Amino acid sequence: MIGNAVFRHYFTGDTTLSALESLTDHVRQTAMLDSVQSLLYWDERTYLPALGGDFRADQITTLSSMLHQRRTDPRVGEWLSELSDDAQVADPHSDVGTLLRQVRREYEKQTKLPQRLVEEVARYSVTGQQAWVEARKSDDFSKLAPFLEKLLSLKREQADALGYPETRYDALLDEYEPNARTRTVRETLERLRQDLVPLVQTIQDANRSAPIDHLKGHFPTAAQSKFGRSTATSIGFDFQRGRLDVTEHPFCTELGPNDCRILTNYDESFFPSALFSTLHEAGHGMYEQGLRTDQYGLPAGQYVSLGIHESQSRLWENQVGRSHAFWEHFYPTTQQVFKSAFGNLSIDDFYFAINDVRPSLIRIEADEATYNLHIIIRFEIEQELINDELQVADLPGAWASKYQEYLGITPPNDADGVLQDIHWSGGDFGYFPTYSLGNLYAAQFFEAADDALAGVDSLMRRGEFQPLLEWLRENVHVHGQCYSPDELIERATHKPLSHEPLMRHLRAKLEPLYLQ
Amino acid sequence: MIGNAVFRHYFTGDTTLSALESLTDHVRQTAMLDSVQSLLYWDERTYLPALGGDFRADQITTLSSMLHQRRTDPRVGEWLSELSDDAQVADPHSDVGTLLRQVRREYEKQTKLPQRLVEEVARYSVTGQQAWVEARKSDDFSKLAPFLEKLLSLKREQADALGYPETRYDALLDEYEPNARTRTVRETLERLRQDLVPLVQTIQDANRSAPIDHLKGHFPTAAQSKFGRSTATSIGFDFQRGRLDVTEHPFCTELGPNDCRILTNYDESFFPSALFSTLHEAGHGMYEQGLRTDQYGLPAGQYVSLGIHESQSRLWENQVGRSHAFWEHFYPTTQQVFKSAFGNLSIDDFYFAINDVRPSLIRIEADEATYNLHIIIRFEIEQELINDELQVADLPGAWASKYQEYLGITPPNDADGVLQDIHWSGGDFGYFPTYSLGNLYAAQFFEAADDALAGVDSLMRRGEFQPLLEWLRENVHVHGQCYSPDELIERATHKPLSHEPLMRHLRAKLEPLYLQ
Repeated sequence: MIGNAVFRHYFTGDTTLSALESLTDHVRQTAMLDSVQSLLYWDERTYLPALGGDFRADQITTLSSMLHQRRTDPRVGEWLSELSDDAQVADPHSDVGTLLRQVRREYEKQTKLPQRLVEEVARYSVTGQQAWVEARKSDDFSKLAPFLEKLLSLKREQADALGYPETRYDALLDEYEPNARTRTVRETLERLRQDLVPLVQTIQDANRSAPIDHLKGHFPTAAQSKFGRSTATSIGFDFQRGRLDVTEHPFCTELGPNDCRILTNYDESFFPSALFSTLHEAGHGMYEQGLRTDQYGLPAGQYVSLGIHESQSRLWENQVGRSHAFWEHFYPTTQQVFKSAFGNLSIDDFYFAINDVRPSLIRIEADEATYNLHIIIRFEIEQELINDELQVADLPGAWASKYQEYLGITPPNDADGVLQDIHWSGGDFGYFPTYSLGNLYAAQFFEAADDALAGVDSLMRRGEFQPLLEWLRENVHVHGQCYSPDELIERATHKPLSHEPLMRHLRAKLEPLYLQ
Repeated sequence: MIGNAVFRHYFTGDTTLSALESLTDHVRQTAMLDSVQSLLYWDERTYLPALGGDFRADQITTLSSMLHQRRTDPRVGEWLSELSDDAQVADPHSDVGTLLRQVRREYEKQTKLPQRLVEEVARYSVTGQQAWVEARKSDDFSKLAPFLEKLLSLKREQADALGYPETRYDALLDEYEPNARTRTVRETLERLRQDLVPLVQTIQDANRSAPIDHLKGHFPTAAQSKFGRSTATSIGFDFQRGRLDVTEHPFCTELGPNDCRILTNYDESFFPSALFSTLHEAGHGMYEQGLRTDQYGLPAGQYVSLGIHESQSRLWENQVGRSHAFWEHFYPTTQQVFKSAFGNLSIDDFYFAINDVRPSLIRIEADEATYNLHIIIRFEIEQELINDELQVADLPGAWASKYQEYLGITPPNDADGVLQDIHWSGGDFGYFPTYSLGNLYAAQFFEAADDALAGVDSLMRRGEFQPLLEWLRENVHVHGQCYSPDELIERATHKPLSHEPLMRHLRAKLEPLYLQ
């Protein structure tokens, strides 16, 4: 009648289970505890009282420790070896084949990590993020520096314990983009950079200015929130199975098969900030909501990589949300809701303004073209940090000089410079390149969907987003980890990952705006 | 530098600990997991998406199962027997004496309960509460009935497994008011009823009507929320260590030594509802915030009983919040904030209105005098349910006829009748009488504090609430479970618990309003 029968075996201590049933139960149970830990994180970044931080770190550390114990439980090794014949014959893309492959991968990694290291990483990730909030607020890098040093030394230890094929950074990258290699990512981003820099240069030389001042004004939080919710609903985010909340640094987290939470941040003086972050996080959320609930907690029902995850957020933010067709549908309402700002602004000027390209300080506010330069800066810096070629004390300086070199600007302070992102303070070194990979995947998926649907623009003009979402569900979401990111993109687009679709997308959008 | 060293032993797997250190670590660690479970409950009643309920029940069931395993861990039994000599010599009111006494009590109870029963109770408590929300919304008792039947059969099984001195209800009452006996509580409430009924009758016969219509009007949620927060802050609730949120059925929960969350519910058309529930929950919260943080998770740092907990909420709600002196301080601001409703209402009329006595349908909106009749009805009904003398199908009828008998009114529907409280749907049978015990404790504590502080009224008139809070901290909060409720009241007031202070309080307040 009620509840979920999945854990029946576990609860009744049934001992007649096959190895496969036991392994499946164990993995699901671990995922459930993982989701409890995600709630601890979500709450920490939304509602935790000011003085609750220390104890929250204790709670998260405890859960991390328990999760690590479960993931390295010797029974997992026994079940896996009992099932190794099954693994040989199973279709690698089937649910069972995927379960055995991915659990083995995770088990082999986790058993290399000492319990103490796992707990220290968990603890310093929480306290580091708390320190980051303070450091950013007071524009004082020194409040974060000791946490970064500790986290870097822990992450180096982690990489060395895990081992790596070519370079220490490989081991960290693998946490976010499984099986990706630093060298390959570097080559791909280098090809992107070589095409991107001349395009940005041409745009700057063209000396045309988008009317971005029109995006500034007074946009009350309540009106933005209502508008953002309604837009997220229109594109397909299901609020029966999710929420939208407010936080310092927008993110998306999954707390259960029907509980996906996205978070944004309202700037009352600048319209695009919250709206595009809402579309972005809703894109993440719709990927989570498109995973198979019958496989919840198992690899076939989990996202495959952060690059693929980011492709879903960027596709809805950029290919959809910054398109002319999207605004042909939404702009009349937008004008009504924010009459004083947009009442007299034409859709073409609005469209130009939200696609303004110019070198800027803040990654999450960067345009589609220069965004990847922000990523390349971080990707280079974190490799140096992990390889001990750059000291934490020299980080603000390195940051400033790379911004000068790649974007021609220098941050006026650390809050808008090296302190702008939460990632490193949470121990997430190796995460940043997945953003650019996401941009590449997004452009390539969108081209294929556009083809298959005979033009997404005409659908968007009519406010029809369901066909695009369906295409993504069928080609990306429902597969969970049954295909690797490489396999997924080949299956969906019949080509390997390339930077060309993104360049085509950027040229098709920006050349008419700037060069005609 | 950061974090909490308390769990050092646990995390490093240190094996050189004494039995006392091991037991202490184990109990603290259990409390930490318990606090994680409390977050799952809190979130369920505040922010959980509509379809997230089933999985949340799974999560809570899993945690309950883990907690039960920890509480019945055979090592606890071994540590306790190794420490039984210490327990003999320890001062029973010392931290260690309290630890050993209370852990033994809990261990002996928990080991009597089968794992399956613990899990079923946890699961049906969550799904029952979810069913209650639906049943109440649609005024349909049949949506809740099957859950109540299941919960009752589980609670009967629980009582029988635990054993009891005189009657099955003893075993359930003991969960909320440790060591209390049904018979004693029944006698105490009977004495109260005998004095109360004539007082209420005299008031009704006096035929004076409080000007309660002035409390109705339009009170925007935002203004109420701001006013409630500011008032809660004034009386001493610490928002650095807590929060105030919105929920269907107000409550208070503790999620860590510096994380106490209170919840209220705004009625935009009726002023007293949210304010008094905020004062009430803030009273609970200040008790939690007054417990010793150095003993967090251990019996010396935990509340001693629900009756004592309720005494703290009722004292701030009634003895303080419904006093004339309190409003001499707060009424001028109240008039400013809610000018259209109160601008022309005198403080005496306002005071009379918030102390209006009349038989009513809803317990949490009942006045101080008739409130206890609501409790007595529930107390009687739940004894019959647990003893199989009343069937769930007959519950709405029994409810209606008791309301007619004790209060002279009949609920027009179940939503405002038997469906008004969440308790039974969460398996909380045996909880209700602690509300009346709380009223008795509150009046007796307040009399003693009034004596010690040479008149609390004159302090309140000046907006000084700190001395009263300090008295409660010293006489109640800091003792945690070091003294039993009986010992605590004797120590603080030099008398055993009696219904007379409450009757004196009610007569002193109500006779001038109604009988002069």
